[in-house]
Amino acid sequence: MQAALAIIGEDLKQVEQQFRKDLQSDVPLIRKVGEYVLSSGGKRVRPALLLLAARLAGYTGDKAVPLASVIEFVHTATLLHDDVVDSATLRRGLASANTLWGNEASVLVGDFLFSKSFSLMVGVGSLDILRVLSDATTVIAEGEVMQLLCTGELDLTEERYINVIRSKTAILMSAACEAGAILGAVPQKQQEALADFGMDLGIAFQLMDDILDYVATEEEFGKSIGHDLEEGKITLPLIHTLKKCSDSERAVISAVVEQDEMSLDDFRAVSGLVKEYGGIAYTVAAANFYINRCKSHLDLFPSSPVREALLSLSEYVVTRSK
Amino acid sequence: MQAALAIIGEDLKQVEQQFRKDLQSDVPLIRKVGEYVLSSGGKRVRPALLLLAARLAGYTGDKAVPLASVIEFVHTATLLHDDVVDSATLRRGLASANTLWGNEASVLVGDFLFSKSFSLMVGVGSLDILRVLSDATTVIAEGEVMQLLCTGELDLTEERYINVIRSKTAILMSAACEAGAILGAVPQKQQEALADFGMDLGIAFQLMDDILDYVATEEEFGKSIGHDLEEGKITLPLIHTLKKCSDSERAVISAVVEQDEMSLDDFRAVSGLVKEYGGIAYTVAAANFYINRCKSHLDLFPSSPVREALLSLSEYVVTRSK
Repeated sequence: MQAALAIIGEDLKQVEQQFRKDLQSDVPLIRKVGEYVLSSGGKRVRPALLLLAARLAGYTGDKAVPLASVIEFVHTATLLHDDVVDSATLRRGLASANTLWGNEASVLVGDFLFSKSFSLMVGVGSLDILRVLSDATTVIAEGEVMQLLCTGELDLTEERYINVIRSKTAILMSAACEAGAILGAVPQKQQEALADFGMDLGIAFQLMDDILDYVATEEEFGKSIGHDLEEGKITLPLIHTLKKCSDSERAVISAVVEQDEMSLDDFRAVSGLVKEYGGIAYTVAAANFYINRCKSHLDLFPSSPVREALLSLSEYVVTRSK
Repeated sequence: MQAALAIIGEDLKQVEQQFRKDLQSDVPLIRKVGEYVLSSGGKRVRPALLLLAARLAGYTGDKAVPLASVIEFVHTATLLHDDVVDSATLRRGLASANTLWGNEASVLVGDFLFSKSFSLMVGVGSLDILRVLSDATTVIAEGEVMQLLCTGELDLTEERYINVIRSKTAILMSAACEAGAILGAVPQKQQEALADFGMDLGIAFQLMDDILDYVATEEEFGKSIGHDLEEGKITLPLIHTLKKCSDSERAVISAVVEQDEMSLDDFRAVSGLVKEYGGIAYTVAAANFYINRCKSHLDLFPSSPVREALLSLSEYVVTRSK
């Protein structure tokens, strides 16, 4: 993130100020919940992607900062709804908004952030950007429903799983990059390259996130370890393990996945199998594949500090769990 | 509704076909939940308002039908989220979507319909209409949060209450009418008149809806009687009663409002007081006030069958509970 911060650090500070402004509402609870979630330690990867993509595309106008704020609003709205759907009690190591203010407030403040995002995008005045972002949020909702339907599905294939994370996570990073490209009005090929860059980056990002559920500790990563597994989410480390393990081991995994509550022993049993069969290493390798492909999309652009910053941002994604 | 149907009946049929088309998704559950909610007996008041407003504004193009479909999508998304927030088990006499598919699916399919609405609006290509509708959905979310905060608030004033229903209900009807006006490119004054018409109509609509919670039977109105009260929603019939009743009667109401579950006897006690103090009659009178003002906004338009249809649609709103 260092190279990125050196270039867009000032813009990112303005993005933070923009949040406060855009969260204005006559309803104090909206500001309260919104500020809580927005200020609880996100790394602003999506705004950074938008700002850097816009720079790479040669854009120097004043629309990148408000759009970068909008992208984080959309992301925050999905987090609020995700935590309701997943019954999450923690988010980045802090109590989740639904724990503090109830599911009702989380659903409705999420709706506010979603709607406000579109109001703000309309203010930017580009139908092309509106198209990219509204299509992205539609795909995200589809991805979330797909994920819900895949809950506890032990036969989930790697292909379908990648499709789920492309929809629920990667598409917004892709849209962030594409919006930056549209601001810069680069030719179609370069616009697509930036969209593809964001997509592959997003897939790798989610793969690394899925690994954290097996290897992180709560203090280190601010996310309740084993939570995906407890919720019956089948992610790549487990998909790989299920392909390799014996029938009796599969039965062990199945029993844990089907339980509503999971003990530490249950978690250890499954994570032990995941490590034994190389589920973590396999997923790291997959993430590296996507990150390498992600970087190659930038070959269309001449070398520059901004391109370097995007490359090192993508490197950061696959190293952050180590 | 008869006069309206005579004029826009064919368009409304096309709107129904448009729903099917717009619900297309690779995720079958989205279509399933979406079709269930969309086909469970809504009266299409919002699409009708948009279609008639567009006609009154002289619009004859092909964008009114897709936009009318979008307005109902937005409305359906809010219903899905409302029922989660209110823990509703019934919607128009049928099992609510959250009862059938769980809160998770309702939250996410609602998000899909919201996002898809914006994608479809972008397709229509008018930034002005996008502005009106995205501002409206932002206000709706604010209104829903305000309502949540007013739960069990016995000191809620009539003024604040009207403000809540303006935000959570009336603004979308206003936006439907304004979008129709924008399609017809009428002068600013007429555009505002149509927006005001929708706003006053929407306030009266919600007032009549609030009455149903006290006087309807489940079979007649397809809505669980007493549900607002059980949820601690303070509506105008109760606000009026609280202003008039004795301290000991207020204590009775307070106890019922604060309970999580309400017996039929509890409901009868409160609805008895509401009738005794004229809460229903007061609310009907208020609805009539808004409907009369609503009609007056159309004075700016010359008499025509379309104007008559809008006037009789507004009449229908205040008579539907009788």
